[in-house]
Parts: sequence; structure tokens; C-alpha cells
Amino acid sequence: MAKRKKIKLGAIVHGVGGHVGAWRHKDAITDASVNFEFYKQQAQKAEAGKFDLVFIADGLYITEHSLPHFLNRFEPLTILSALAAVTSKIGLVGTLSTSYSEPFTVARQFASLDHISGGRGGWNVVTSPLEGSAKNYSKADHPTHPQRYRIAEEYLEVARGLWDSWEDDAFVRDKESGVFFDPEKLHRLDHKGEFFSVQGPLNIARSKQGHPVVFQAGSSEDGRNLAAKSADAVFTGHESLEEAKAFYLDVKNRAAAYGRSADEIGIFPGISPIIGHTQEEADRKYEELASLVSIDKALQFLGRFFEHFDFSQFPLDEPFPDIGDLGSNSFRSGTDKIKSKAREQGLTLRQVALGAATPRTDFIGTPEKIADLIQRWHEEEGADGFIIHSSVPKGLDDFVDLVVPILQERGVYRTEYEHDTLRGNLELPIPENRYAAKALSEA
Amino acid sequence: MAKRKKIKLGAIVHGVGGHVGAWRHKDAITDASVNFEFYKQQAQKAEAGKFDLVFIADGLYITEHSLPHFLNRFEPLTILSALAAVTSKIGLVGTLSTSYSEPFTVARQFASLDHISGGRGGWNVVTSPLEGSAKNYSKADHPTHPQRYRIAEEYLEVARGLWDSWEDDAFVRDKESGVFFDPEKLHRLDHKGEFFSVQGPLNIARSKQGHPVVFQAGSSEDGRNLAAKSADAVFTGHESLEEAKAFYLDVKNRAAAYGRSADEIGIFPGISPIIGHTQEEADRKYEELASLVSIDKALQFLGRFFEHFDFSQFPLDEPFPDIGDLGSNSFRSGTDKIKSKAREQGLTLRQVALGAATPRTDFIGTPEKIADLIQRWHEEEGADGFIIHSSVPKGLDDFVDLVVPILQERGVYRTEYEHDTLRGNLELPIPENRYAAKALSEA
Ligand SMILES: Cc1cc2nc3c(=O)[nH]c(=O)nc-3n(C[C@H](O)[C@H](O)[C@H](O)COP(=O)(O)O)c2cc1C
Ligand SMILES: Cc1cc2nc3c(=O)[nH]c(=O)nc-3n(C[C@H](O)[C@H](O)[C@H](O)COP(=O)(O)O)c2cc1C
Repeated sequence: MAKRKKIKLGAIVHGVGGHVGAWRHKDAITDASVNFEFYKQQAQKAEAGKFDLVFIADGLYITEHSLPHFLNRFEPLTILSALAAVTSKIGLVGTLSTSYSEPFTVARQFASLDHISGGRGGWNVVTSPLEGSAKNYSKADHPTHPQRYRIAEEYLEVARGLWDSWEDDAFVRDKESGVFFDPEKLHRLDHKGEFFSVQGPLNIARSKQGHPVVFQAGSSEDGRNLAAKSADAVFTGHESLEEAKAFYLDVKNRAAAYGRSADEIGIFPGISPIIGHTQEEADRKYEELASLVSIDKALQFLGRFFEHFDFSQFPLDEPFPDIGDLGSNSFRSGTDKIKSKAREQGLTLRQVALGAATPRTDFIGTPEKIADLIQRWHEEEGADGFIIHSSVPKGLDDFVDLVVPILQERGVYRTEYEHDTLRGNLELPIPENRYAAKALSEA
Repeated sequence: MAKRKKIKLGAIVHGVGGHVGAWRHKDAITDASVNFEFYKQQAQKAEAGKFDLVFIADGLYITEHSLPHFLNRFEPLTILSALAAVTSKIGLVGTLSTSYSEPFTVARQFASLDHISGGRGGWNVVTSPLEGSAKNYSKADHPTHPQRYRIAEEYLEVARGLWDSWEDDAFVRDKESGVFFDPEKLHRLDHKGEFFSVQGPLNIARSKQGHPVVFQAGSSEDGRNLAAKSADAVFTGHESLEEAKAFYLDVKNRAAAYGRSADEIGIFPGISPIIGHTQEEADRKYEELASLVSIDKALQFLGRFFEHFDFSQFPLDEPFPDIGDLGSNSFRSGTDKIKSKAREQGLTLRQVALGAATPRTDFIGTPEKIADLIQRWHEEEGADGFIIHSSVPKGLDDFVDLVVPILQERGVYRTEYEHDTLRGNLELPIPENRYAAKALSEA
């Protein structure tokens, strides 16, 4: 393999957070999920820390039991476009589901974000875990897990095809002759597949980075195959370095089976560092956060992964109940993990719920400890980069101020942006235009 | 009627333009349609001119005969969100079709734009004129003109319902008690209609202005009815003050029939001023622009309104051909007008094509003349405001620098923004939340 790339970093920005109780923290900004100044400050802080990207997650269905952040938050494409205007180097990656949208619109919106930002756009492809989403989209049924991935695969093919509608030198724009573009360099896709028929061409050109960077988030077999086949990067989550290494190797092997080099696909586990000047201070911060989570809220949080299942009907201090197949049609990779861990370690319902809602991860400690772990996960091939969640207020600020300088000092992380495109900074190849490539090979 | 509101202004920003030849002008920025700096400069200039709004048009189908601007341009929601971050008072209105999108997504994206901008978002509801759009959206057929409007009507009802999912005081966010929101103030829409079934609730609250401002653009009978029933404003186009007055009165009367006051719906014709220090200079600018349009391009431009019909098969200097019903399923109000004018005035194909592609309107002249016309159209109830197209480079800059001060001097146009929401500046009422209103009336 070629010389290993340096560590890459992304910051997930999500208002009052992915943690059930974080909004109750004394320093929390309680309207952060719809507060543009907050998003702007976080994106600019991440850019000051030379992060590769900010990341916006998403969802299409809420109930009154959803996380506070999910109830009332910005939509990814709009907030990322706004952030494009107040940043200049950092990548802008947003989640959008292939199960409830149209490839022509979505390819176009991401291409537009990509142009607005000068080649910094990215799309996190997901398939929508929650069955209820169908009810918001005039659909009788939520597609099954395997079907969602079949749709996603075709969808992504269509999007990539649309992105190539115009060859890079198609726009001549010659005032004298009146030739605006070269019709030979405009291509109709004429896609007709199982789920989509899309003629094209797309009404927007490729950006400086060719295609927006495509992330994929979904760690089941089907999810890994989709990523291995056609994503540029994978957003995932792991509880231990061993798990991370196994996943990393597996996805890189699958990519190789599709004829791709290991360098062409980046693996990004999410981590939630809690940083203190001492281990004790960090532990105290964790405890403070955990104390904001009532068991009721933890059960609701857990329930969401299982299609908003009501776990409160079971005794808290007995072994995690047998709930059969529940969850496998929604967050499959996540629910499989929860169930097998509960079984293997003989956990109670209370332990599982609190462990899910307010996990005590390894990434709690001093800046040095966090930096050590990050470096180790990277060196031992558990990760190419990390998506940093900040579960405590100022978590990202602490990370940038305290951990980043250590990684820079050690020479494992950039001190300046190498490029002004996301693809450039991630050291990913610019996808060749399929038609230009063809013309070349036929010449 | 209450005291007449002052003149309102919008600036349509559309890159290399709605004019076939404008990109060939010596001062034209030929990549303007995908040039963020251009859009930013235009929006900021319009804001310096105290404009109510910038306006972004849209389309979902191109062929190699489409206008240069249509081939490769920003998508409205993304570009407007980016502009939200670099402006602070001006409204941000974008076109989005109800024929090829999902109300849950679209209601959400406009609400998100509305939050990002602090209550400055707006949506121009259109139904997509071009049949080819169906081919980009996996649809067998383009819905007929009346069906498109039936869809639009239900769609807008759904969007307004989703926007009311959360009452304005739903988010309690009390850290102490752990109560994030009041479940009594969260409402599921449970819409089941002819075209859509949407459960809700929407995962974003109302903004400061309640709902984004809803424009409607489509001037047929069906279009006028839709606007009269549920739009806040209408984007239209007229060739004379008489035509404008008739349209104005007609839409206000239709609104009254729906129990709405004339003040609740604003009529905005688009105009394309060409400004010179003298009439001669303005005329010269017009001629220069017209000289950039070849007859071939003019025929293509005309053809687009008739489903990309090929007019080049007809003799140029004979009466406009009889093409029957063609066009009535796409740009009906526009094609009806073209056909009846050609018939009444006995125009040749060449005259019709050039008249469409590079119209010589009344709004060509000195700043005083333009200001007079604007004031007159407003005073005589042909318009509540205007959408300014700039067909020549620096057209908007000239308008802001030369015409705006005259209107301000005359006291018919603002010298400072009165509000920081679009609804506020347009003097439109904030729609009451349907559920809060109900609770109140039942109390
Ligand atoms: C780390 C990670 C992040 C995810 N982020 C999102 C998200 O923001 N929105 C979403 O709808 N689904 C998200 N998903 C869910 C997946 O895309 C997918 O719908 C679900 O996990 C089932 O797929 P899987 O079994 O392949 O993991 C995420 C999954 C993972 C593993
Ligand atoms: C002034 C004006 C502006 C319009 N702008 C758009 C636009 O940006 N995008 C679009 O798809 N249609 C646009 N339309 C087309 C209409 O929305 C509609 O699809 C078409 O005109 C047929 O409807 P009508 O017969 O009611 O006018 C516009 C129409 C008018 C009159």
C-alpha cells in the first residue's frame, strides 16, 4: 500500500446533540438545533482546527419520544449551503436518504452545494431506518432493509451518471461566435432501471472536485457492500479498537473485490471525546452528563432504534428482554450489535438503556490520552479519520484547542489545508467523467 | 381599502440571464449562473437598495436548445441558503415545483431556510410547464395543466399544515425539570387527500414570520385561483399597464371571493428596465442587446414555451403559423398570450420570435422615466411591487444607484427596512397557527 495518509477529521454539528440529556447541561445553548450563529461558530471553529469537514446528520420521522435535537432542527442541504458562505476550506457533508427522494433533485442540490462552496460538498447516503418515514411520504410501506439498499445502489449510479452530464470543458462561452457550449460534450444519461428512469442531462456542471464526496453510513452487510462498491468514505461507529480494525479490514477487502484500492475509500468512525485537564476532571464531566439522563429518557432513546418500541413494559434490572427480530428492518447493524452485546455480557435492560443513551467510551480523559487513542486507532488501521461528536457544551472547542495541537505536534495531522476542495484534502481521486474517459479510450 | 402600501421590490438574480444573448455582451460575466460571488454581489446590492427580496427562478428539464442560463445554474434552495448567510434584511424567495417533489421535504427545506435567515424565506410555487420534466423523475406522464394545479392546491395545504406542527410556544426548554417541549403544543397533521398522505409532525418549528412567504407564478385561470386562495403574492408579467390593471383587479377580486382582503395578497409583475442617462443611451443599450440575438436562437427561445417546438420549419416573414392547442399544457397563460397577440396584430413569425426573445418594453429610458412608470403602475393599481430583471450587465446596479433614489425622494419607496422579516417588510399578516387559533376559539 502507498504511504499512509495523515489523520482526517470531521465535526458532526448537531445543535442540542445526539445525547438525550446534553441540552440540560448548565452551559448548553438550548435552541442550538435551529440557531444559525451556533452552527456558524462550530463550523468556523472546526475550520480553525483544519478539520476536513463538518457533518450534518438527518432524519425523516419524529414522534414525541424523539431526541430533542431531532424534533426541531435544520435540514442538511440548506444549513450546509449557508455554512458554505461563511467558511472557505472545510468540507460540507450532509445526510440524505435515498428511500424518500428523487435522484434528479438530490444530485442537483448536492452539485449546487458543491459549486457554491467551490468543491467542498459531500453527501452521506443513508437509507432511512425508521418505518414511520413512509407515513410522511404518501407511501403505504417502508421498503425492507435489503430493498432499501437495492434502491440506494441504483440511486447512486443515477446520481453519478447525472453528475457527468457535462464534460469539464463543455462550456466554451465564446462571446464572439455565440457558442455557449459544445453539444458533443453534453450527455444524456437515459437511465432505465428497476426503480428509476432518469433521462437527464442534469442542469448543472461538475464542480472543481468532479463529484461531491460520497459518504455512506450503514454498517450491515448490505451497507458495507454499497460503500465498498461506490462510496468515497464510510461513517461508522465502534466500541473498541478491535471492532474498528475488523470493520476497517472488511470494508477495504470488499472494496478490493470491486477493483478499488484501499486508498480510495476512507473509514471514519464517530467518537465522542470528553476532555479534562486531568482524568478526574474528564470523568466528572462524564458523570455530570450521565446524571442528566433519566431512565425514562434512556428507555425512549433505546426504543427509537427498535422502531420506537416501548421498553418501559419490562423490568429494569432483569436481563435484556428477548425481542426477537425487532429492529432488523430499521437500524439493523446497530440493533444487532445491541442485542448480541446484551446477550454476551448478560446485561440488564437498565444497563443496555443507559449504555446506549450515555455511553462511557474510552475517549474520556486528558488531551494526551485522546490524542494517543486517535493516533493508535489510525496507526493500527481501525480508522482513516474520525467524526468528532461533541456531547458536552464546548466539546468541539476543547478538541480543537487542546487535542489538535498535540496531533499536529506529532506530525500525524495537518497544520494547514493542502487543498481547497474536500476531495483534495481527503486525498481522494477526482472521478473521471465517464464520457470523457470513454472518448479517450476510443480515440 | 386601508392606506396603500409603498412600492415593494424584488430582484430576480439569474446568472447569465433570462435573455438569450445577454451572456455575449462585452461586460457579461459568462459563468455568472454558477458563480457564487456574482450572486452574493447582486443580493448585497439589492439589499443596499432596500429591496424586499431576491428571487431565484427554476426549471427541471433542459435540452441542448435551452437558454444558456438554464443549462448550468444553481438550485434555488441551496443558493438562497448561502445568500442568507451574507445578507441580513432582504427576503430570499425561490421557485420550487409542486409537480415533482414531496411536501414533507419541501416544507422542511423552506422552513429551514426561513430559520437560517431569521424569517426571510419565501417559496414561489410553480407547477412545471415542461413535459420533459416527467422523464427526469421516473414518471410516465407529465400531469395535465388542470391536474398540476389540483396537485399544487393540495400540496400547499399540506405544507401549511406541516408548518403549523409546533405552536409558537411549544418549546419550553426547561433545564431544571427536563421538559424540552409541551406535548399539547405538538400536532400531527394526519393529512389524507387525493394526491398526498402525510402524517407529520414536521421536524422543524415555525420561524419568526410564521410561514415562509408564498408566491405563486402562473397566470392562467387555475393559477389565479390558486394564488387568490392561498398565496401571499403573485409573480406575473404584463406588456402594458392596461393588462396589468386588469390582472390586478381580477386577482384581488378572486381573493375577496375567498374572504381575503386585498392587502393580504401582493401582485408583482416582472419588468426588465434598461436604463440610460438619456433616452438615446437607453435605446442604444437595447439595440446592442437585441443585436446579440440571432434569429435561430430567437426561434429556439420561442419554441421552448411550446414544448421545445421546432419553429424553424416555417417561413420567417409570413404570419405566425397556426399551431392549434400547442403550449396550452405547458406555459398556458404565456402561450395563450403569444398566440392571441400574433393573431390580433397580424405579426410574422420573425416578429413574434424576436418580440419574445428580446422584447422592446416601455421600461427603456432615463431613471426618471423608469421611476415615473413604476410609480404610475403602482398608483393606478397595476402592481403592488415589481420583480426587477436585469437583462443588461450591471442592470441591477444601475437600478439601485439611479432609480431607487428617485423613488425614495418621492416618498413612494422605503429608505430603511421597517422589519427584519420578509413578511414584515411586505406588510403581510403572520399566519396564525391553526391549532393555537382553534384552542383559543374553543376556550
Ligand atoms: C454511524 C452511522 C450514522 C448514521 N447516520 C444516519 C443519519 O444521519 N440519518 C439516517 O437516516 N440514518 C443514519 N444512519 C442509519 C443508516 O443509514 C441505516 O439506515 C441504518 O443503520 C440501517 O442500515 P445498516 O443496518 O446498514 O446500518 C447511520 C448509521 C450509522 C452506522
Ligand atoms: C412570471 C412567471 C414566472 C414563472 N417562473 C417560473 C419558474 O421559475 N419556474 C417554472 O417552472 N415555472 C415558472 N412559471 C411557469 C408557471 O409556473 C406555470 O408552470 C406555467 O406558466 C403554466 O401555468 P399558467 O398557465 O397558470 O401560467 C412562471 C410563470 C410566470 C407567469
